[in-house]
Order: sequence, then C-alpha cells, then structure tokens
Amino acid sequence: MKRIKLTVAYDGTDYCGWQIQKNGITVEEVLNRALSRLTGEEITVVGASRTDAGVHARGNVAVFDTDTRIPAERIVYAVNALLPEDVVVVRSEEVPAGWHPRKCVSVKTYEYRILNKEFPDPVRRRDTYFVSFSLDIERMRRAAEYLKGEHDFKSFCSAQTAVETTVRTIYDLDIKKEGEIITIRVRGNGFLYNMVRIIAGTLAGVGRGYFEPEDMERMLEAKDRTQAGVTAPPQGLTLVGIEYEKPDNSGSGSGCSA
Amino acid sequence: MKRIKLTVAYDGTDYCGWQIQKNGITVEEVLNRALSRLTGEEITVVGASRTDAGVHARGNVAVFDTDTRIPAERIVYAVNALLPEDVVVVRSEEVPAGWHPRKCVSVKTYEYRILNKEFPDPVRRRDTYFVSFSLDIERMRRAAEYLKGEHDFKSFCSAQTAVETTVRTIYDLDIKKEGEIITIRVRGNGFLYNMVRIIAGTLAGVGRGYFEPEDMERMLEAKDRTQAGVTAPPQGLTLVGIEYEKPDNSGSGSGCSA
Repeated sequence: MKRIKLTVAYDGTDYCGWQIQKNGITVEEVLNRALSRLTGEEITVVGASRTDAGVHARGNVAVFDTDTRIPAERIVYAVNALLPEDVVVVRSEEVPAGWHPRKCVSVKTYEYRILNKEFPDPVRRRDTYFVSFSLDIERMRRAAEYLKGEHDFKSFCSAQTAVETTVRTIYDLDIKKEGEIITIRVRGNGFLYNMVRIIAGTLAGVGRGYFEPEDMERMLEAKDRTQAGVTAPPQGLTLVGIEYEKPDNSGSGSGCSA
Repeated sequence: MKRIKLTVAYDGTDYCGWQIQKNGITVEEVLNRALSRLTGEEITVVGASRTDAGVHARGNVAVFDTDTRIPAERIVYAVNALLPEDVVVVRSEEVPAGWHPRKCVSVKTYEYRILNKEFPDPVRRRDTYFVSFSLDIERMRRAAEYLKGEHDFKSFCSAQTAVETTVRTIYDLDIKKEGEIITIRVRGNGFLYNMVRIIAGTLAGVGRGYFEPEDMERMLEAKDRTQAGVTAPPQGLTLVGIEYEKPDNSGSGSGCSA
C-alpha cells in the first residue's frame, strides 16, 4: 500500500464544487471514478481544499492509497486519459503513509480575476468577475496593505462557518492589471470560508469608490461580516497552488510526519 | 429606415460558427432573433466575417436595417438583455444606407493563443490551443518576419476555397508570451480561409523545431497548401477587431460610399 499525492487542475464551471454531494457531479467524484477504473480498486481521495461550485483550481491537492503497480510518477499520465477534459491531474508523487493534505502546514495561493470594462467579454465569462464600474487599482492596492499580516478575519468570513479561530496570516496580497483583467493574488497560511471572495468583493468596492482604503481597518476591527463588502462570485476565483513543507521532513515538527 | 452597425463579441465554443446553417445554432441566428424581438421587425444581419465553429470574436461587425425609434447608440444596451451570455454587442452606431461590412476597405486583427505547458489548463481549454512540446518563440518570431508584407498566401489557405486572388498583405505579425500563453497577433487587409490558423500551426511547427524559420520562404514560393504546417484548431482563434475607413468618407474612393 502506498499513498499518492495528486496535484489537480480543473475548470469548476460545470461542477458542484469539490466535495461529493447528492445534488450534482463534483470534482472529487470524477477523480474517484477515474482512479478506481485505473487501479481496479475502490479509490476515495482526500482533498486539501473543498472549493465551492464554480471555483477553479490550477493546483488543488488530493491523496489516495493504492496497491497499484503503476509507478507513482506515471499515474499522472494514465489517469488523465480517464478524466473529462475539465479536470486534469498535473503531478503525481508518492508521500509517506500518514501524510494528510489538510493536516499538514501549508501555504495557499489564490487568484481572483476581475474583468473591468464597459461590456462583458463572453470568452472570459467563466473565469472572471465582470465589473463595469471603472476600478481604481491604486486605491485597491492601498486597501490591500491593511489586510496583509496576521489579523482576525471574522468580518471576511461567511457567517455560517464554525471554526476554532478566525485569525489568519496573509503573506502577500498583490494586485496587477493586464489589459482589462485585474488579478488579486493572495498567499496565506489558511483561508476562512469565502474569505478570498469577500476580500475581492471588498477591494472592488474600494476600487469603485464605495469604500475608502482606510475603511479596511474598521472592517477588521468590527469582527462582523456585515461590515465588509459583498462576496464576489465564484467564477473569478482560482486556487493556484498549495505549498507544503517537504513531507519527508519528519521529526522537524512540521505536523507532517507519518 | 436606418442602417445600424454592431460590434459583436462572442464565445464561439457552443456555436456552429457565424453563418446560419441547418446543423446547429449560429451567432448570426441568435443576433437576428434578439434584434427581431427588440424591434418587432424581421431583422437579418449582414456580417463582416463568417467565423468558423469554435472561433471567438471580440469585435466582429454586422449591419442591419430598421425603422426602430430606439436611438442607434442605445441599441447596444437594449439588445444585450435579449442575448445569451456568450454573445455580447459592445457597440451600436448608425452608418450610411449603402455601407456594407464586407465591401468596404478594412483591416482585420486576429489573435491566436497557444497554451504551452506540459499539461493542459482546463480553464483555458476553450480559448487556447494546448501544445505540450516546448516552443521556442524566438524561432517563431524569425519565421513570422518572412510572412509580413504582401505575399501570395496560397500555401496558407485551405484548398477548398475559390477566391479571385490569394495575394494578401500582413501589416503586423507579433508574438508575445505571458506566462504559459503565447499570443500570435496578426493584422492584415484580409485573410484567406483558415489562413490565421494555418499560420499559427506553421509557426508552432517552427517553434518545436519541425520547420526552420527560413522554410517560410519556400512555403510561400510553393503556392501549395501541403507545403505549410497544420491548421491549428479553432478555439485558439479570436477575431479581435475590424478597422474601417470612416463610413462618412464618401467620395474618397474608399469603396465605402453610400
């Protein structure tokens, strides 16, 4: 028995998110199906990030256990032939038996993309949030500065969540504009439910003049979801990647040892 | 009766191209339907470029005649509410009665996008051509130089076409790389059937080392479709825009006078 770590990319448009549910097809489900067919075993993957319906990934992570004789690094090639074209495995590798994608210390990177022009671009409607108000990205950058670092992000978390703590650390929060697309790239040690989408919705609110950059301080302070901006829609969001401490660094106190 | 010029953007993925046909839904058809509903007249648009199935546009052009009392510049707002989300009108304006989008002198700009990485990106599968071979864009740029200017592009035209002349002029042919996406941008006074896709397929062939940049000279010389590279698939292609001489410049010999 060996444990395999997969790095997975997908177009979330036509999925009810990552996690298996009754109402529709999920990414987890198509992965389980393809891996079961490949190995002849009943495979159940464990994912790192349960992305919502419509959210995309270039590097979500999942693990599964298998007795297959296919070499770990070759699984990526074999499984893609059994997957629909909107789900692609981009890497496969063996990890220690106890390695768990949600229990190990990790840094996640997300990108949120806004298409900012007068009329929508139909080709980019599936992976951008269309905003017709002109957005001032210098204002958005000033606002973003307030969110960097360790904060209680309770105001930036959907109300229905039950988590131990709403304190998180944002290491980087950069905003760039290429043509008509504004990309908010955020890197942190963990994100609350809808946190990136609420940050994106709030920064867009600053960009159009509805909030001031300095309002971020007040919003963080309030620890109240109603004080921040709207939750931007899912299709603008992409989970770019998850960095882990090396899984074989056991004994280093990484929480990742087998 | 007035003649209205529309600038139209669309995601071509789910359409059988621009031109009305029996086998499936086309962009022309959904425009006719929406404009007929809007005006209460039976509208038939005349398009500038009959793009193929799967090809996208940010600025195709179409005209139609109407007695509607909606001001020309307001039609853009009214019609979008009646169109599916993958077709968007981005501009509407009145033009002289005789103005015809295919008979007037114009310059067209196309972009062909290649996604060049080891594994596909599912989110960009609908608007890029995925190439896993590593492409050398410096070689592609050297090859592109041979195609600029006035040439007989018979080798870069699908065989089934009947046209008076296969001589065309390419004003600009630029290749840029942003991240994993290579964009070939070409601007010219007209393009033969499949010409941009054959240029893209041939330049990709140069990029991966299958052709030499200098081979372009021989290919143009041959006037034989079999001497150029493959026709790259439709989803990488976007008609970016069509520039016309001012429609009101009648008498200037533009071929655009009413």
